[in-house]
Amino acid sequence: MASTESLSQSFSALSIKPAASVSHKETSSPAEWKEALKSNPDAPGDFELIKTLVFKPKTAKNATPVPLVVIAREETETNSGALGKKLNLKELRLASEDLLKEFFNLDKNSLSPLALDENTFPRVVTVVDSSIANSSSVFALHAQSSSSTIFLSGKDIVSYLRHLEKEDLKVHEIDFEALKSETSAPAPAAQKAAPEKKKKEDAKIEGAIEIAIGVKKEVDFAAWYTNVLLKADMLDYYSVSGCYILKPWSYTIWESIQEWFNARIKEMGVENAYFPMFVSSKVLEREKDHIEGFSPEVAWVTRAGQSDLEEPIAIRPTSETAMYPYYSKWIKSHRDLPLKLNQWNSVVRWEFKSPQPFLRTREFLWQEGHTAHLTKAEAEQEVLEILDLYRRVYEELLAVPVIPGIKSEKEKFAGGLYTTTIEGFIPTSGRGIQAATSHCLGQNFSRPEMFNIMVEDPNDPTGRGKVYVWQNSWGLSTRTIGVMVMVHGDNQGLVLPPRVAGIQAVVVPCGITAKATDEERKRINDACLDLEKTLKKAGVKAKADLRDGYTPGYKFNDWEQKGVPLRLEIGPNDLKKEQTMSVRRDNGAKAPLPLADIQTAVPKLLETIQSDMFTRAKEIYDSRVKLVTDWKDFVPTLDAKCVVAMPWCEEEACEDDIKERSARGSEQTDERAPSAGAKSLAIPFDQSRWPKIISGKTCCPACGRLAKKYTLFGRSY
Amino acid sequence: MASTESLSQSFSALSIKPAASVSHKETSSPAEWKEALKSNPDAPGDFELIKTLVFKPKTAKNATPVPLVVIAREETETNSGALGKKLNLKELRLASEDLLKEFFNLDKNSLSPLALDENTFPRVVTVVDSSIANSSSVFALHAQSSSSTIFLSGKDIVSYLRHLEKEDLKVHEIDFEALKSETSAPAPAAQKAAPEKKKKEDAKIEGAIEIAIGVKKEVDFAAWYTNVLLKADMLDYYSVSGCYILKPWSYTIWESIQEWFNARIKEMGVENAYFPMFVSSKVLEREKDHIEGFSPEVAWVTRAGQSDLEEPIAIRPTSETAMYPYYSKWIKSHRDLPLKLNQWNSVVRWEFKSPQPFLRTREFLWQEGHTAHLTKAEAEQEVLEILDLYRRVYEELLAVPVIPGIKSEKEKFAGGLYTTTIEGFIPTSGRGIQAATSHCLGQNFSRPEMFNIMVEDPNDPTGRGKVYVWQNSWGLSTRTIGVMVMVHGDNQGLVLPPRVAGIQAVVVPCGITAKATDEERKRINDACLDLEKTLKKAGVKAKADLRDGYTPGYKFNDWEQKGVPLRLEIGPNDLKKEQTMSVRRDNGAKAPLPLADIQTAVPKLLETIQSDMFTRAKEIYDSRVKLVTDWKDFVPTLDAKCVVAMPWCEEEACEDDIKERSARGSEQTDERAPSAGAKSLAIPFDQSRWPKIISGKTCCPACGRLAKKYTLFGRSY
Repeated sequence: MASTESLSQSFSALSIKPAASVSHKETSSPAEWKEALKSNPDAPGDFELIKTLVFKPKTAKNATPVPLVVIAREETETNSGALGKKLNLKELRLASEDLLKEFFNLDKNSLSPLALDENTFPRVVTVVDSSIANSSSVFALHAQSSSSTIFLSGKDIVSYLRHLEKEDLKVHEIDFEALKSETSAPAPAAQKAAPEKKKKEDAKIEGAIEIAIGVKKEVDFAAWYTNVLLKADMLDYYSVSGCYILKPWSYTIWESIQEWFNARIKEMGVENAYFPMFVSSKVLEREKDHIEGFSPEVAWVTRAGQSDLEEPIAIRPTSETAMYPYYSKWIKSHRDLPLKLNQWNSVVRWEFKSPQPFLRTREFLWQEGHTAHLTKAEAEQEVLEILDLYRRVYEELLAVPVIPGIKSEKEKFAGGLYTTTIEGFIPTSGRGIQAATSHCLGQNFSRPEMFNIMVEDPNDPTGRGKVYVWQNSWGLSTRTIGVMVMVHGDNQGLVLPPRVAGIQAVVVPCGITAKATDEERKRINDACLDLEKTLKKAGVKAKADLRDGYTPGYKFNDWEQKGVPLRLEIGPNDLKKEQTMSVRRDNGAKAPLPLADIQTAVPKLLETIQSDMFTRAKEIYDSRVKLVTDWKDFVPTLDAKCVVAMPWCEEEACEDDIKERSARGSEQTDERAPSAGAKSLAIPFDQSRWPKIISGKTCCPACGRLAKKYTLFGRSY
Repeated sequence: MASTESLSQSFSALSIKPAASVSHKETSSPAEWKEALKSNPDAPGDFELIKTLVFKPKTAKNATPVPLVVIAREETETNSGALGKKLNLKELRLASEDLLKEFFNLDKNSLSPLALDENTFPRVVTVVDSSIANSSSVFALHAQSSSSTIFLSGKDIVSYLRHLEKEDLKVHEIDFEALKSETSAPAPAAQKAAPEKKKKEDAKIEGAIEIAIGVKKEVDFAAWYTNVLLKADMLDYYSVSGCYILKPWSYTIWESIQEWFNARIKEMGVENAYFPMFVSSKVLEREKDHIEGFSPEVAWVTRAGQSDLEEPIAIRPTSETAMYPYYSKWIKSHRDLPLKLNQWNSVVRWEFKSPQPFLRTREFLWQEGHTAHLTKAEAEQEVLEILDLYRRVYEELLAVPVIPGIKSEKEKFAGGLYTTTIEGFIPTSGRGIQAATSHCLGQNFSRPEMFNIMVEDPNDPTGRGKVYVWQNSWGLSTRTIGVMVMVHGDNQGLVLPPRVAGIQAVVVPCGITAKATDEERKRINDACLDLEKTLKKAGVKAKADLRDGYTPGYKFNDWEQKGVPLRLEIGPNDLKKEQTMSVRRDNGAKAPLPLADIQTAVPKLLETIQSDMFTRAKEIYDSRVKLVTDWKDFVPTLDAKCVVAMPWCEEEACEDDIKERSARGSEQTDERAPSAGAKSLAIPFDQSRWPKIISGKTCCPACGRLAKKYTLFGRSY
């Protein structure tokens, strides 16, 4: 963006004289902005807002995108589908905050034509609404910040933009009115080629921009997802790219998971501890296979204050190699076994792929358990016990179905013996997602040339035998929250399963008209407070929303966006009937509930919601796992947003081959979903849902070798 | 340390032929080492251990220390006091693990004469026991690891050391027997000069090395402290200097504190959240005063994988500047106030002073609360509410008395308006310690040129007024645990207040003789298990210690070291009398308790222990706060390990002056206690315990200006 000094130089060179220049509160929507200006005494009495939209066209995977900047009057309808067609740019999407930051170092609320300068103009395509130039209006533009505004004439805006032009770099003036009629004319060939684009347009939900989600889940899933997170107040973007702020509304879900999981692992004899976040490079690099999996993503501290450190120090990407030297020191006898430690912390993996909140972030919260056992049997039993706890976190708390199984050799944890996993599924994208993993490390880390974690064998009669301990490690992260949002959220926003909701039931006073007396108002408000109290006593996380100055409709929308499982309305009529009108967030079902036994009815209803949410999600997942026995069905099954269950040979070469062939098979590439080729998701423990594999006969449809077990393949996160 | 290759080169050059070379389990004491060797078939039948001790002499503050390495036969008494005198080295102390790491890259269990090589030898003073050279014994030396041993003759050891000598760098051969008689001869002048050194020797508790703490709290407090932490299994050293592992026995205390504090702040409407650990340099450096306080200690990430980052990114030393840009974004109206967020996380302050577990570490765990309010009054009320919760964490959970007050301008939080504090006291060192702080930031961070956190004033009738929000921040760290250990621990080890103990009562079977039948043994063990069960039902964290192969005496010591508040013994006699013998950890009091009402008696006794521990600690603290009205008493009061309460002018210049004069006043300097000069600790809220200050009359004893309030001064951590 242009600095203030260079701006004023340009202005005076171009004889641009702003009508006014004002400071105000930061604003995050056009409505707020307008309001801030209207109440400002230094602003002109009449003005129009300028909107500045940035779109990112579809770009080849590793190419630098060339954003499209559209400058228009607030009122102008800027149809991005038609615009894209005219400019020959594919699949225009509103740019992410990250991209805005990267290109303009501004957020979307601070954008304006003035974000374009000698540096940025050549890197974008600029479109200006042709009706600006000759308008007699005064236009409001942000001056590099959402809290300051400058007022310019349309002529000045265009002349500012024109002065940035170079020989082959022009501003496109577009008449959006004309564009509209151009595209409404029949153009069958073009339409056929772009059904996807047409759908993208449909993604905008009319009139819902301000308080609902704005785009449809089924149409632009990625935009829907971030919108839900922002509007439900779960998350905010952060000034360090790839990192996000977990706001209380999402953090409380993590606290519920922590509480539940902590109680259960403590019953198993696991103790919590805390190891430092730093790992010396020597220690980190001890296990070759293991570190290979992480080294490109390790963040290094090299300086403290003004001093360079003698040796760079890593921030843990996971703690195996940081912890196990101490396991070696602490475990001296079989009496010290089992050793079962867990820590709740954050780890850092500096991914260079595009980040996605909760699913792929550079720092994330998780727990990592690390245990050591005398026998393989004991270690293996624990691996499965933990995996089952993970399954229950998803299924019983988050109402998200998962399939437990084992990872292929290619997909297992680097350096471990084998990895068990629970695999989730996102129906909207048709992609699998690794929900949590529990690894049996075997003796790979304990053997003498590694960490040498060894005891004398208590079962050896000679007293000379040694045992290298059997180790496990297992982790569950805040990815849980992202999966839950993707599975349950809808076009009204978040849908929370009752067991993890920060508020389970919101009580909203209704039917208070402008003519209502203070007494009537008070009677209804008091009834709401009473209901809150009664429910809290019954163990329900309830809240009466008595905010003044908001309509019931506003409140309904607000709590729907935030996913509160149950709304209870109380109006004059309900009071008369001694009831409350309940509205379920998950399916919209409305039913009056008598206040008399509300303390049992609401908890029961919440449990019903919880179980209905799970059942629905499970039915969908089950219906999307498709048996494939012929390779020709493989890619079409993926393209139909399904997971493939296929008898598989379990050969790594075959897996590589499948990935390549299934990537080529599909036209679609989406940079936010990194792997368009299918990989193996899990070899499910429960093989009984498919026809028996006949040993020596059933073949792998991908390579023709003999199949071992049914394996799930899918595109995945 | 010398590499294996260079060692074998030296050996062959010197014609040294090891008698044997063996690998074994890592060992952490001479007894274990000996045992490991005796059971090894490849070790010689007869051998002596070599002990390698490293001492650090007193060194000027910023000078590099020159460690003293003493190599002696296991049996040789190496009197460090006498040795220091002979070599003219002051106050020899056993070197810390950090120093061993720095000089030799080895821990104390792996040290040996072979740690000396071309690099390390010139940096230390080396002393060798003269009786080694001509001994006919075979000696066991660690070969750069506590899990491998090499056997050499005395002659070979000395010849290895001699080959490292240079013109002016010789090995000192010392006859320790002769040294003993030299120093036992009367030397009154020398003795008078070194009473401290004599006392240091007394610090070793005879015969207690293996299972109790080994040094007396009153004599070598610093060594006592780390020994307690290690032996109580609270903590271990870590491969990154200044960072420590919190083991379950200490982490569980932190969990108790978290649970208690979380419940109370949630009642106050505070919500938990999580902000990323990274802060961009631009954001970090926004508040000048604030960052000045932290910048020398900030750790910077500059690289990810193999890529240098475009801009270095800081790891948070605290989160004010990381969070407040978002407060500015989120707070748009007075309806968004108060905003009260808290996070439990770790922060990094890369201190270059010597670290001390829990008290000064490069990464530490804490909570940081950050709130924003519409009015000053509301903010100020919260500051005090939080401070009182902190007081209660110390006094009610940890049984540690603290004094609440306000910090002087010099000692307040950089960038804030004022800082309230609770000040603790460590009787053994006579030093004050800042236990927790709650800051009123005023409008310093919200003002327009800072983070511009502003709302329209709802109380301004014109509707045009603006309010910059009032902010607080407050933090409590794992320092709590260190203070608790220092206050309550004794020469048997840790003493835990019942409310934070991971195990509150341990049940130990006693009186099972070798002649006991299996049935008798089972009867007693079953009674112990029954008691554990009964107590658990009554809400007591109880554990029956039925470990086989350990004597009751061993178990007593073990649990005493770990500080378990109550021991319950059950022997045949107790069974007959239907009682258990209770032994309190805090005062050793023994009393039989009838089993009949044990479920009420034990919780009651635990509460008594809790309250007795607090009362005792409070009496000591109170008795050590001394009123000083004449400057000449100031330094002697500090030297008597007391805190000064003095009418004070509150001038910064006076505080600087006091610090300087009180530092000069004292001979003692201790690098682990960084500030030997006194600073102001707090201006206590409760001024009533001292005579009234008469306005216009009572003077500051330090500078003679008029005094404002009684202020606590002391040496401090």
